[in-house]
Amino acid sequence: MAKRNIIVGQSGGPTAVINSSLAGVYKTARERGFHTVYGMLHGIQGLLDEQYVDLSTQIHSDMDIELLKRTPSAFLGSCRYKLPEIHEDMEIYEKIFAILDKLEIEVFIYIGGNDSMDTIKKLSDYAIVKGHSQKFLGVPKTIDNDLALTDHTPGFGSAAKYIAASTKEIIRDALGLAYKKDMITIIEIMGRNAGWLTGATALAKTEECDGPDLIYLPEVPFDIEKFRDKVKELLKQKQSIIIAVSEGIKLPDGRYVCELSGGADYVDPFGHKQLAGTAAYLAGFLAAEIGCKTRGIEFSTLQRSASHMASRVDIDEAFMVGGAAVKAADEGDTGKMVVIDRLSDDPYMSTAGIYDVHKIANNEKLVPRSWMNEDASYVTDEFINYIEPLIQGDYTPFMVNGLPQHLVLKR
Amino acid sequence: MAKRNIIVGQSGGPTAVINSSLAGVYKTARERGFHTVYGMLHGIQGLLDEQYVDLSTQIHSDMDIELLKRTPSAFLGSCRYKLPEIHEDMEIYEKIFAILDKLEIEVFIYIGGNDSMDTIKKLSDYAIVKGHSQKFLGVPKTIDNDLALTDHTPGFGSAAKYIAASTKEIIRDALGLAYKKDMITIIEIMGRNAGWLTGATALAKTEECDGPDLIYLPEVPFDIEKFRDKVKELLKQKQSIIIAVSEGIKLPDGRYVCELSGGADYVDPFGHKQLAGTAAYLAGFLAAEIGCKTRGIEFSTLQRSASHMASRVDIDEAFMVGGAAVKAADEGDTGKMVVIDRLSDDPYMSTAGIYDVHKIANNEKLVPRSWMNEDASYVTDEFINYIEPLIQGDYTPFMVNGLPQHLVLKR
Repeated sequence: MAKRNIIVGQSGGPTAVINSSLAGVYKTARERGFHTVYGMLHGIQGLLDEQYVDLSTQIHSDMDIELLKRTPSAFLGSCRYKLPEIHEDMEIYEKIFAILDKLEIEVFIYIGGNDSMDTIKKLSDYAIVKGHSQKFLGVPKTIDNDLALTDHTPGFGSAAKYIAASTKEIIRDALGLAYKKDMITIIEIMGRNAGWLTGATALAKTEECDGPDLIYLPEVPFDIEKFRDKVKELLKQKQSIIIAVSEGIKLPDGRYVCELSGGADYVDPFGHKQLAGTAAYLAGFLAAEIGCKTRGIEFSTLQRSASHMASRVDIDEAFMVGGAAVKAADEGDTGKMVVIDRLSDDPYMSTAGIYDVHKIANNEKLVPRSWMNEDASYVTDEFINYIEPLIQGDYTPFMVNGLPQHLVLKR
Repeated sequence: MAKRNIIVGQSGGPTAVINSSLAGVYKTARERGFHTVYGMLHGIQGLLDEQYVDLSTQIHSDMDIELLKRTPSAFLGSCRYKLPEIHEDMEIYEKIFAILDKLEIEVFIYIGGNDSMDTIKKLSDYAIVKGHSQKFLGVPKTIDNDLALTDHTPGFGSAAKYIAASTKEIIRDALGLAYKKDMITIIEIMGRNAGWLTGATALAKTEECDGPDLIYLPEVPFDIEKFRDKVKELLKQKQSIIIAVSEGIKLPDGRYVCELSGGADYVDPFGHKQLAGTAAYLAGFLAAEIGCKTRGIEFSTLQRSASHMASRVDIDEAFMVGGAAVKAADEGDTGKMVVIDRLSDDPYMSTAGIYDVHKIANNEKLVPRSWMNEDASYVTDEFINYIEPLIQGDYTPFMVNGLPQHLVLKR
């Protein structure tokens, strides 16, 4: 009988909890009696170069599992690599399966976004057609929450929590400075097409904080004149205005707002003009139009890597879906993605469901228009009720010499 | 006998721990038997408008004191207001003292930077010359750590801790993505003239993290060609390069590096061109010169407002200097600033000292050249040994509905 080995990889943009899914895969595989748990280094791209590790050389204790849950970014390294269609390049598939056979892999698990689910689909199709016995399972992750079928994506809750907490702090900073002069603060949030994370700034509205005054999502065209007039109107009532905008807001003619900036001196190697950010552009625009102090703030990469402010619900769910993928494969499933099903809002309860990767459409899940207010300058209570459970609780970071400790790959 | 009342104000740019100093003033004033503790709203500027509160209407319990220690930005509101010379505008001084007399103030405490110490100097001089009995004490704060006489400033340790922790997370993010392609990450840190905060990124070098590869402080002119060559050299050894730069780095001809960007379309109401940031400029520059993926990240306002990642040493010292100012005034001192004296490095021990505000020179405390390496592209072990004790420990945030709770002013 062949060894029951398992291999797991990570793909796409990292999140604060993608390693908690890895921890869930590892722990469940151990508990279900799998022999060796391999980790692909840099996903399928690294696997093609035969880059992998035996995870038992990396994770030595339950303490290491806990540390892994608190480590941001892809522990194994990530990649952005899309497999060709099977009929386009059979050789690459033969190579992958030769490696899997050599390692006596029974289960292949891939943690990632849409492209990763496409990888799972192609590999499981190929296996069935060619009579290979391996099982292929996908585990979703993305801070953007734009995957269909799952109630929400692992990674989203922690990014939302970081954004909401940071927005509260920025609002306090602005209020402390506003006296006898107006000040406008524009916060730019990740999300090129989907406004889930930008909407999460509304969570900063709590018993001791007004939250942002305006929130603009990329789902609805951005009318810059109406925006200016709305800000002017607000300045009659208060001195400190806080505005959250998605990096991806677009004008009615389809251009990104940040394209209006004209860009800086340099063009990057792919021929893209280096654009000033959306917040920076709008801060300049309002300063010129209204004549008051403005500032633009980008939360930037920390939105996906700030594991020090990760959500416990998110870390736990990420762990759960990792484990559920192992369980499903062990019970015979292949060509499936594990999803999160919401069982109840109040109290919040969720469980892992399973979905055929062939049924995943490639369309992004956007914020529904009905979850924004009439002029699309804020989100509704339904939006807030949907997100609020996902940012609850925390895992205390393991602090060493004053800083959060991480588990890192030893070569 | 007049009531023993005390008034306290906050001034200048906020920090994560300026409210801990306020908490220290309040608690010590209560314990030493002062009657009413007033808070100026928006510092001396608000006081001139007779804007103040009785702090007992705001702080009701030891729990509120603890919450105040965990609240970023200026609880009372801040201002940027420099008093005129006494001989230039006597009236403004008469107005201030009339308000102080009306409120039966015995002690006036001002928490702030250089301008605030100037306020303390002028008010104490005026009081002595005019025979007023009030005592005036200054409590330092600034994230920039550029005040002389004090070993370090309250607020610096927390900003340094946030910067070091975030740098670690950014480094993990970059490593997860680097496979068969080079990537350069440039992190921009606050500090126009002093490089203390930029140097704090070196703390990210820990047992499981290499830390930044290059660190450029504003104290030394920045040679952009040498910089490019150094990065090219590094890319021969590794794929992910992390560079920390101060927002204030300047070319040998005196121009800020960010001025090279040419700026965006808008000019602000003060006639300043809206400049792209230093990191964004250098990211564009390296992309064009080297032809690899680059990204610029600004830590921005969160450096001074992220109380969720504040240092326990910093919060405790901020509290201590607030209390020490009350004690000093109560014992008869006036025209003084409380400072932090370092008693020992290992184990770290500090205490509050006291200094005559007349002796404070207005020169900024810069990072000594000897605390940088030979070509000024990194900091030395001496620099790291100086900062490391200041980021230790933490105060667990009080989390409510998944977010850190703050104490806010009720009007």
